[in-house]
Amino acid sequence: MSIAPAPETIRTRLSRVDGQAGELVIGGYRLEDLAPQATFEEVVYLLWHDRLPNSAELTKHRRQLAEERALSPQARQAVQAAVEQGAGSMDALRLAVETQVLDGPSEASESREAWLQQALRMVARMPVLVAAYARFRRGQEPADPPGDLGHAAAYLYAVQGSPADPEAIRALETYFNSVIDHGLNASTLAARVVASTHSDMIAAVAAALAALKGPLHGGAPGPALDMMKEIERRRSASGRSLEAETEDYVRQTVAAGGRLMGFGHRIYKVRDPRADVLSRAAEQLAVDPQRADFLRRAKAIEQVTLRVLEELKPGRNLRTNVEFYTALLLECVGLPSDLFTPTFAVARVAGWTAHILEQRFEGRLIRPQEEYVGEVGRRWAPASRR
Amino acid sequence: MSIAPAPETIRTRLSRVDGQAGELVIGGYRLEDLAPQATFEEVVYLLWHDRLPNSAELTKHRRQLAEERALSPQARQAVQAAVEQGAGSMDALRLAVETQVLDGPSEASESREAWLQQALRMVARMPVLVAAYARFRRGQEPADPPGDLGHAAAYLYAVQGSPADPEAIRALETYFNSVIDHGLNASTLAARVVASTHSDMIAAVAAALAALKGPLHGGAPGPALDMMKEIERRRSASGRSLEAETEDYVRQTVAAGGRLMGFGHRIYKVRDPRADVLSRAAEQLAVDPQRADFLRRAKAIEQVTLRVLEELKPGRNLRTNVEFYTALLLECVGLPSDLFTPTFAVARVAGWTAHILEQRFEGRLIRPQEEYVGEVGRRWAPASRR
Repeated sequence: MSIAPAPETIRTRLSRVDGQAGELVIGGYRLEDLAPQATFEEVVYLLWHDRLPNSAELTKHRRQLAEERALSPQARQAVQAAVEQGAGSMDALRLAVETQVLDGPSEASESREAWLQQALRMVARMPVLVAAYARFRRGQEPADPPGDLGHAAAYLYAVQGSPADPEAIRALETYFNSVIDHGLNASTLAARVVASTHSDMIAAVAAALAALKGPLHGGAPGPALDMMKEIERRRSASGRSLEAETEDYVRQTVAAGGRLMGFGHRIYKVRDPRADVLSRAAEQLAVDPQRADFLRRAKAIEQVTLRVLEELKPGRNLRTNVEFYTALLLECVGLPSDLFTPTFAVARVAGWTAHILEQRFEGRLIRPQEEYVGEVGRRWAPASRR
Repeated sequence: MSIAPAPETIRTRLSRVDGQAGELVIGGYRLEDLAPQATFEEVVYLLWHDRLPNSAELTKHRRQLAEERALSPQARQAVQAAVEQGAGSMDALRLAVETQVLDGPSEASESREAWLQQALRMVARMPVLVAAYARFRRGQEPADPPGDLGHAAAYLYAVQGSPADPEAIRALETYFNSVIDHGLNASTLAARVVASTHSDMIAAVAAALAALKGPLHGGAPGPALDMMKEIERRRSASGRSLEAETEDYVRQTVAAGGRLMGFGHRIYKVRDPRADVLSRAAEQLAVDPQRADFLRRAKAIEQVTLRVLEELKPGRNLRTNVEFYTALLLECVGLPSDLFTPTFAVARVAGWTAHILEQRFEGRLIRPQEEYVGEVGRRWAPASRR
């Protein structure tokens, strides 16, 4: 029996996820067209304004983002405390984001302009917070990226303390664009639910980060890399071929009822368009011989895994998903694997803010369908008679 | 066109909201039967274990909650910083809850027992955090309630620094029980979305708090009291009757397109069962002459408001809702109006934790229906050609 009023469908113009066709549209553009060509800043602008910026608008937008790219003393202290206490990267990030309530009273504003200003700050600061966490954990001071760097370049600089090469920057930019938005995934839904109550931008982004921490959502690229490393480890211990070790690993994992991280998707059944885009982006990193070698071995692992999965689970059509290529790409770009989920957040926060704006200024209070499956008709008795 | 797979309905055995019949079932009991008789601790137990505790279980459960009722140094520091920076109560509360990530790594545990332990801590600490905020803001040190007090009594002690009278404690307990859970409201949905990713208890509660801050959700009891105070102010300035001032206020507000806080509900069309229960609980506070006088005047305002609303919006059937009686009751109990929403959180956190446990251990990843209403088929062009 269902009693609540029928929920309204949530409407969005930000992205269209077509699992049957294996297609993803971001702000009206096919992912394959947009992600490898645009800068991250352009796609952020597209989501906020429903069109790409012209040159003058882009220059201004880049400058505004760069100007907000700062680590506040309170955020710095929060990240440092989190590192000292051994908190995980996503917990540290959430705590640091929440310290922005100390920037002053965040009265729920009625103006889209004020919310957009908060969105800008949120997108600009996320890479700074993640990088500060990464550096404190290595016992380093935060690095302050030069103000003329773009978003992706600034993030790599802030993590690594030195300029990244152009191939790495472009690959990271393509990654950012590929994962910037993806319909009503769990973190985006959490953000929209909070925004639908007319709460505020900080609160809504914190809720999204809370969801992204979950291993069923943002937690898989790390484990995908762990799988590759485990296979490599076995190979170097046994002296057998990479193919043989991969085959054994896949058969053992499936036999034990385990899940192969990086393969299969709940929505995309024919192909994950992001996987294709990231695969091509990773290939362009192969100008470097060390990266080329890593990518060749990853490719071999992928091929064997797909072949064995097809044999063990025929008809299930398990494909390589975005997490596998994310792992490859971020590893090649030089980011440590426990930064993979926070790096996802550095990109996705832009999508969250766009959904928050859309929900806050065009949507209604979200209240979904529910089904009551509990008891009725129980009668009160005091504890002594239970 | 709708592309995402059909979402599953979220199932719950915790509460049933029947807007057509005007009925609320909490853990199998009708609200009217449960709320005025049970202690808050019993209802918390009911939600977590799907039955009321016997005497021995209740004693143990009360002791466990009392033992976790502590203000950690980090939470204390966060609340103090929030007060110093002028942050609002809900922002302070969220920041304080998030500092619990500093208690040590919160690895997403697979065990319900570990999550339940976190739930206990979350419910036990919420009143302490709210009270610390209230006292720091008045320039006072936090007050440590005696360990033998029940939850409602301990909260009042912690806010006021001295023991409350039995009528106030019972009224607050009835209030807590009345608002402990209410189906898939926005904050509960936010908590469940986060839990559905297998994130953790702190993250899920923080997301719920983020939603509760929104004026469309947890933000209305304060304004309902503000309305009563404004009418009182006009009356004492004009010397006219309370009835005449109320009638003018309602007509002016409706004519200006404003909303009367405390009247009408999106779901309950015939009656809000919580309003009835809270109305009776408030009446029992009238043993005190000052409270009796306040309640008499509030009742007069209510009657005139309902009469004028029926005249101005015939057939809309606008009834007094839970927020109006919440305002009365919490005012009589001696809580300041900007603590109303955090006090709501002190009760509702128990419902959140029960939903989080249910979603985490019996549910699946939440992914709702969406409708794409944006463009398709846009083609990339560089900024210089836009």
